[in-house]
Amino acid sequence: MSEYIGHLINGEIHNDDANVQTVFNPATGKPCAQVGMASPETVAQAISAAKAAYPSWRNTPPAARAQVMYRYKALLEQNQDTICELISREHGKVLSDAKGELARGIENVEFACGIPELLKGEHSRNVGRNIDAWSEFQPLGVVAGITPFNFPAMVPLWMWPSAIMCGNTFILKPSERDPASVLYIAQLAEEAGLPAGVLNVVNGGVDVVNQLINDDSVEAISFVGSTPVAEAIYQKASEKGKRCQALGGAKNHAVVMPDADLDNVTNALMGAAFGSCGQRCMAISVAVAVGDQVADALVSKLKPRIEALKVGPGSNNDNDMGPLITLDQKQKITHFVDEAVAQGADIITDGRTKVVPGYEDGFFFGGTLFDNVTPDMTIYQQEVFGPVLVVVRVNTLEQAVELINKHEYGNGTCIFTRDGEAGRYFSDQVMVGMVGINVPLPVPVSYHSFGGWKRSLFGDLHAYGPDSVRFYTRRKAITQRWPSGDVKDGTLFSFPSL
Amino acid sequence: MSEYIGHLINGEIHNDDANVQTVFNPATGKPCAQVGMASPETVAQAISAAKAAYPSWRNTPPAARAQVMYRYKALLEQNQDTICELISREHGKVLSDAKGELARGIENVEFACGIPELLKGEHSRNVGRNIDAWSEFQPLGVVAGITPFNFPAMVPLWMWPSAIMCGNTFILKPSERDPASVLYIAQLAEEAGLPAGVLNVVNGGVDVVNQLINDDSVEAISFVGSTPVAEAIYQKASEKGKRCQALGGAKNHAVVMPDADLDNVTNALMGAAFGSCGQRCMAISVAVAVGDQVADALVSKLKPRIEALKVGPGSNNDNDMGPLITLDQKQKITHFVDEAVAQGADIITDGRTKVVPGYEDGFFFGGTLFDNVTPDMTIYQQEVFGPVLVVVRVNTLEQAVELINKHEYGNGTCIFTRDGEAGRYFSDQVMVGMVGINVPLPVPVSYHSFGGWKRSLFGDLHAYGPDSVRFYTRRKAITQRWPSGDVKDGTLFSFPSL
Amino acid sequence: MSEYIGHLINGEIHNDDANVQTVFNPATGKPCAQVGMASPETVAQAISAAKAAYPSWRNTPPAARAQVMYRYKALLEQNQDTICELISREHGKVLSDAKGELARGIENVEFACGIPELLKGEHSRNVGRNIDAWSEFQPLGVVAGITPFNFPAMVPLWMWPSAIMCGNTFILKPSERDPASVLYIAQLAEEAGLPAGVLNVVNGGVDVVNQLINDDSVEAISFVGSTPVAEAIYQKASEKGKRCQALGGAKNHAVVMPDADLDNVTNALMGAAFGSCGQRCMAISVAVAVGDQVADALVSKLKPRIEALKVGPGSNNDNDMGPLITLDQKQKITHFVDEAVAQGADIITDGRTKVVPGYEDGFFFGGTLFDNVTPDMTIYQQEVFGPVLVVVRVNTLEQAVELINKHEYGNGTCIFTRDGEAGRYFSDQVMVGMVGINVPLPVPVSYHSFGGWKRSLFGDLHAYGPDSVRFYTRRKAITQRWPSGDVKDGTLFSFPSL
Amino acid sequence: MSEYIGHLINGEIHNDDANVQTVFNPATGKPCAQVGMASPETVAQAISAAKAAYPSWRNTPPAARAQVMYRYKALLEQNQDTICELISREHGKVLSDAKGELARGIENVEFACGIPELLKGEHSRNVGRNIDAWSEFQPLGVVAGITPFNFPAMVPLWMWPSAIMCGNTFILKPSERDPASVLYIAQLAEEAGLPAGVLNVVNGGVDVVNQLINDDSVEAISFVGSTPVAEAIYQKASEKGKRCQALGGAKNHAVVMPDADLDNVTNALMGAAFGSCGQRCMAISVAVAVGDQVADALVSKLKPRIEALKVGPGSNNDNDMGPLITLDQKQKITHFVDEAVAQGADIITDGRTKVVPGYEDGFFFGGTLFDNVTPDMTIYQQEVFGPVLVVVRVNTLEQAVELINKHEYGNGTCIFTRDGEAGRYFSDQVMVGMVGINVPLPVPVSYHSFGGWKRSLFGDLHAYGPDSVRFYTRRKAITQRWPSGDVKDGTLFSFPSL
Repeated sequence: MSEYIGHLINGEIHNDDANVQTVFNPATGKPCAQVGMASPETVAQAISAAKAAYPSWRNTPPAARAQVMYRYKALLEQNQDTICELISREHGKVLSDAKGELARGIENVEFACGIPELLKGEHSRNVGRNIDAWSEFQPLGVVAGITPFNFPAMVPLWMWPSAIMCGNTFILKPSERDPASVLYIAQLAEEAGLPAGVLNVVNGGVDVVNQLINDDSVEAISFVGSTPVAEAIYQKASEKGKRCQALGGAKNHAVVMPDADLDNVTNALMGAAFGSCGQRCMAISVAVAVGDQVADALVSKLKPRIEALKVGPGSNNDNDMGPLITLDQKQKITHFVDEAVAQGADIITDGRTKVVPGYEDGFFFGGTLFDNVTPDMTIYQQEVFGPVLVVVRVNTLEQAVELINKHEYGNGTCIFTRDGEAGRYFSDQVMVGMVGINVPLPVPVSYHSFGGWKRSLFGDLHAYGPDSVRFYTRRKAITQRWPSGDVKDGTLFSFPSL
Repeated sequence: MSEYIGHLINGEIHNDDANVQTVFNPATGKPCAQVGMASPETVAQAISAAKAAYPSWRNTPPAARAQVMYRYKALLEQNQDTICELISREHGKVLSDAKGELARGIENVEFACGIPELLKGEHSRNVGRNIDAWSEFQPLGVVAGITPFNFPAMVPLWMWPSAIMCGNTFILKPSERDPASVLYIAQLAEEAGLPAGVLNVVNGGVDVVNQLINDDSVEAISFVGSTPVAEAIYQKASEKGKRCQALGGAKNHAVVMPDADLDNVTNALMGAAFGSCGQRCMAISVAVAVGDQVADALVSKLKPRIEALKVGPGSNNDNDMGPLITLDQKQKITHFVDEAVAQGADIITDGRTKVVPGYEDGFFFGGTLFDNVTPDMTIYQQEVFGPVLVVVRVNTLEQAVELINKHEYGNGTCIFTRDGEAGRYFSDQVMVGMVGINVPLPVPVSYHSFGGWKRSLFGDLHAYGPDSVRFYTRRKAITQRWPSGDVKDGTLFSFPSL
Repeated sequence: MSEYIGHLINGEIHNDDANVQTVFNPATGKPCAQVGMASPETVAQAISAAKAAYPSWRNTPPAARAQVMYRYKALLEQNQDTICELISREHGKVLSDAKGELARGIENVEFACGIPELLKGEHSRNVGRNIDAWSEFQPLGVVAGITPFNFPAMVPLWMWPSAIMCGNTFILKPSERDPASVLYIAQLAEEAGLPAGVLNVVNGGVDVVNQLINDDSVEAISFVGSTPVAEAIYQKASEKGKRCQALGGAKNHAVVMPDADLDNVTNALMGAAFGSCGQRCMAISVAVAVGDQVADALVSKLKPRIEALKVGPGSNNDNDMGPLITLDQKQKITHFVDEAVAQGADIITDGRTKVVPGYEDGFFFGGTLFDNVTPDMTIYQQEVFGPVLVVVRVNTLEQAVELINKHEYGNGTCIFTRDGEAGRYFSDQVMVGMVGINVPLPVPVSYHSFGGWKRSLFGDLHAYGPDSVRFYTRRKAITQRWPSGDVKDGTLFSFPSL
Repeated sequence: MSEYIGHLINGEIHNDDANVQTVFNPATGKPCAQVGMASPETVAQAISAAKAAYPSWRNTPPAARAQVMYRYKALLEQNQDTICELISREHGKVLSDAKGELARGIENVEFACGIPELLKGEHSRNVGRNIDAWSEFQPLGVVAGITPFNFPAMVPLWMWPSAIMCGNTFILKPSERDPASVLYIAQLAEEAGLPAGVLNVVNGGVDVVNQLINDDSVEAISFVGSTPVAEAIYQKASEKGKRCQALGGAKNHAVVMPDADLDNVTNALMGAAFGSCGQRCMAISVAVAVGDQVADALVSKLKPRIEALKVGPGSNNDNDMGPLITLDQKQKITHFVDEAVAQGADIITDGRTKVVPGYEDGFFFGGTLFDNVTPDMTIYQQEVFGPVLVVVRVNTLEQAVELINKHEYGNGTCIFTRDGEAGRYFSDQVMVGMVGINVPLPVPVSYHSFGGWKRSLFGDLHAYGPDSVRFYTRRKAITQRWPSGDVKDGTLFSFPSL
């Protein structure tokens, strides 16, 4: 063994190897790297570097800051193969899926290029006679992001391009499960011309998170992960008086209406439920069939497609689905499935015993489908975060909306229909932050913002897009009146002769 | 005794008189009313009423909701004398000052009239081929406001016009020190056509606050008050996973530059420091003189003006300054002044012994000025919230900005200068949310937003204005693609013959 | 005879009666008033008044200007019966329809109340180091509006509330056919507190129009009327180097898809085609049936409804339809119908011989329906502006869109369907400025803007709503850098000792 | 001889050499290329190419279109030396000045990268019950730009990046004096991936302009040049019913206040008056000295600096100033100077006889300064467009503003002062579109918009920045209601059993 993954502090790789943790290739189940777990001193160095870099970066005109982003976009595109291999190796997702992830990440870099437009404040002449007022959106200072394993490159790119373009300096604590790709792209930012200390990466676990939250120099926390952790982080950051946006878990329902084209729906659900092995906070995990006819037909179309899923290592683009991230996760999901069977759900396809030849130690799990799942079952209530799709049957669209609105999560949802009224009723009434009408994964484009409702997001402002600019800045309201010194009628003009 | 002040729940006055508290006229020191302290059942009724009123109000088109605001503005204007008498009677401020308060409150009603414009989301055609995306800003549900004694009518009007126009229903917990005026204006809203239950008022103390925070039906909390309470409320609300904006205390500095016209400055400071007896979160409590010449001249101009202040009951518009809100507050401020003297500050005018003939039991306190105050003194560090102005001396503008930036509060500040560069440097560098350039009380107009920095505000979004619309709504991102059923080329068209 | 209608100049009614023209009550065919036709001197007085009022009005803070609008809204509502009687008397439309007109007009007053928000410019800190830039939207000066007979109160309210709130002063030249209501509402604006000279009304014909265009003091022209006049005015105003927006005629198509509910469609078309006797620039005058089955069914449903239309004086709210505006117009429409019959269109209901008992001299015309109209027929190509609906048959939605896109006009259009894809395809591809999806008269609400495409509008910016604010203002771009005089480090500070 | 410069049509260089015109190197006075003057057939081909490319380009998602701009920015940067040599060779400006020009041009490409954000329309839920409305900003189709010699690369980049990103296709008619650089950068756009036909360049003179204006397929015209031509083009385009923005000439005044630092002012004026040989529409050509003391001191500081100006070929970066564009222009400016002397202006430095050794045939003209110029002199009234600065003396700022406001042009202006009140009064009251406060050339950054007032711009909307997006798009207002088919309560759901 093997590769060592360090931290990026003040523009240099910092090898803090007193404490390391193994990173696994989930397709082989074998270690592929060691990641340094930052000591308190290391974290403090990162914070110091970010603080030191702040004043100069804050005063750099936004249009000048943006030049870094333009070059960065080009570098990310030029190095996409390397980045995607790192993503796939540590996360397990299929290479083509990693490319999709990176592409969505780059869109956020594009959004951040537009920072001179996005930072515009509002100017009012004559709020009173000869009094003007305007707003400025000034940076916060040092801000931190904590990101999950499931999109190791994209979620960091949701955060820091916007944060840094707003004039802040940034510390990222990525997932220790798959830290290589994000360290690589952070270094590319330096190569693009980002001054040292503006972007720092520290690897580690909960101790690092707590230190970032507790340090008074860190002004704001952005988090993406599971709901229990999101909630805890929101509480802790708020206790420290900090602004925080904490994105949590999901249970995304797709409503299938009787007028939907079921072949299209089946295609859409296959990708939305099983892509990236279901490890997406926008994955569809519940199909809500409106009417038994729809349900029966849908299940019969899904079954052979799930059975035919090609499961194997992500390095092979022919595969549809790679492994889960860890053995723990595989066991947890196995338990969810066992419990669902015990609670009376009809198991249609069973992924528990999936073995991939040549990759017997990989953390694979086959595509799993349940029918006749009911709201009282654990598998309905909890976020599984694996390749498990459940079908719930209702009789009307209103019942479907009620069902969704009662769930504790409200991240994403989707309706399949051709009917304008159904789409409008659904999008209006459903208590979910991101709604697709015939779009199974309604992840907003980078110039809109990403965020769930209910227990899927804690905070006021959503991630990336316009909301992120507001999150990463403080509003300053300036009111100005110049006292009359009669300057304009010339009586002042004797003074230069003094 | 005397008048009883109840709650407004579901459009009716609710007399929950099991537990009452006395409201005093601070000019006489005598009780003037009894306010009901809501029982848990009463608060629960208010929450129920707000919940019941929500679905219909949410679905009322914004332009229809706005009709209530237009009528409400007219009613507030027509009843301004009554409202101002209630304010002055319970708060003590001079009637003309109460009128100013109400006028600023009405501006927020005007802003809220524009809700159809303010609620516009962003629409993007072709985020992908034939895929559209847009954002909607939907209401939260039931939201609550907790407001302070010092602007009994204005601060509630910062909150609920915007909250309600966004489609929410509202519960207000005003200060129990001066609850009459706000109950009156809430009833005017009903008269203006607001449906019952959309706006509710419950009187009470900390128990009511806690119940509002802890009830799962209350989606968001807006608070204005002192920093310790603001912080506690922010923490508690966040612990419950709620969005919260909590505005706290202040220590507002006015920087006086050598090129400023000191007569103008003196005029400005007299109003900004002693208006409303200093009980404003935007009051100037520190004058930062740049250079000893400025300081000496300023103090010599302020002294006779402070000595000439007319102190007396607010019901007499000839007075400059009314009483403090409570006897406790008077004692607290006396203690601050005692301590400052003990710590070595030079007392120039001393308001501790002020007695108003005929109002010997009133809570009056005379205008007080200190010179040579230093940052280590308690009177500099803490918010006094009384008619006490201190002069701190520095040598340069940079020192002035450093001084301000080191203070824990960052609500408002002001610079007096004629120099463009000084104004720009100050407004750029000062870590304060609301900045005046020759404007001593830079309270933003209603179509900008109000908020401090540092420990003067907890949360991301400021009060009233554009930020309040974002605070009182949830962003919903909708992505839409209509499946091709070949509808446009006519093959669909056989189906009606079925 | 009878009432005399003068001009409003500098806050006073100006009776310039050297030259008058008769105003008719179209229901009786009898004169009901005399309108003064302004002499060149009178027009010059109006321009002078507007010029004189400008500097002070321009410098009045927008929030103060808005106070007039709030009062104005209330006055319009209080006097709606009077206004609607004047509209109906001179225009002929049914009272309930006049109320609808006024209501839409008042919405524009509401929009204009929000002017402090709407006038906000964009502020950028640090476009270069220590350089700031912002935009202001300043008024133009004196601007003029020329409005048509068909909405005598509403169209003026599209223009001047926005123009005046932007800080301009205004001269209105309304239609000489029905000038009473607009003069009345202009006087109400004075009653609401508008300073004299800010809003002026001059009655007259083409000479007045030309004088307004040719006078160098008039900075911009807004026009609504027929396309030939709109085009001529746009050319003349542009020749004078002025900005101009000139809204012209229309031929609005409604596409009826096979999946539409034909009862709903029939209801919608009855109002959209025959309301206000078809004298609306947003009236539907062409029904495009997709498929013969749709066409046959639609015609058979429309026929009895048209035959049952209650035609009579607008003063009776039981009537569905009043008279045309003039005898000339009646003869012109009769000719259109004659020609269509001659060109081979199938006449289904014939309104040519409609006589209303008791109102034999009124300018009534019955509801008229043609089937099998083709694009080469005059009745298809030209704007009829009367109660005539024609059915054109096509086979597919694509053909319907092509048909519409080939017409010279592009004001409004509508599709009736339940299908999301059809609605999206139509709204995306159709070359028309205002599109309804199941909304037969898609007049945008006041906070969106009104305008057609192709030969229905000349100019860049649409009427009312956000575009009107841009039209009635000039952008000023300010770039500011304060020279360093070392003011911030104190070296300046020796100068007060001079 | 020599190089031939053709047209770019449908992605290919089109050598239409029936008619050519000589391009001169103004430093040597010798021909350096031949430019093809497009025949009517050639222009028609360009229009056809643009029409053919439109439908596909219009339907390409804005975010996909933007990818071309990102690559284009990189290509322009990589090829800046080549571009600047072409600019300098044909225009004569010093290379470093050409680099400045290109840099400002590239900023417009950056702005255009943000098109997904800039094209957002406004969405309103519930404008009525269950009725939604939104706006879309759709492209116009084929649009044309006509650009001047003085910024051969920058002004085209003001236009087409924005026009094309909005979804239009474009035809550029650049100046025939210096056509090489713009043809080169247009080809780079193709290299960046722009589809053939989206951007076309046709060289020629007034005939080409007229053909573009008269062709019905060209939807809009953007022009930058002299005021007489701008006015004529605005009139002609408007006569054809087209939208047009036509930017014309200037006479930009710099007001020098008594409190200004005259060394700074002198530095600023040297660049602003003599840079690019005064051939900039934002050049300062009038210095307005407030008070004789200021005037005397300013003239005495300027005189030696002007005498020391290094005049010579632009290819040498040591030079301050290159030649004028043509011999004609040199003779015209000589005549202006002769006339000013004759009319009584005091000539301080005289550039008429400037000869550059080794470049005796070059079109050089020395820096020229007049004092005591008065508003009645020709040299004050007309745009000279050469290295001639005149000093006008006034007594007060108010007089300075009146002077500027009386001039027929209103493009740019500037004030030099330290005083906040003076800056605010000036920027508020001056009737000029672009105002600098201590910024001598207040060309707005690309994310604000460029435009003068009065006879410096014909049209409503300014060039580049936000206004350009509005100019290059049509607003479409969509109002949508889905008819209730009871889809949401399930009664629809029997139909799949058919």
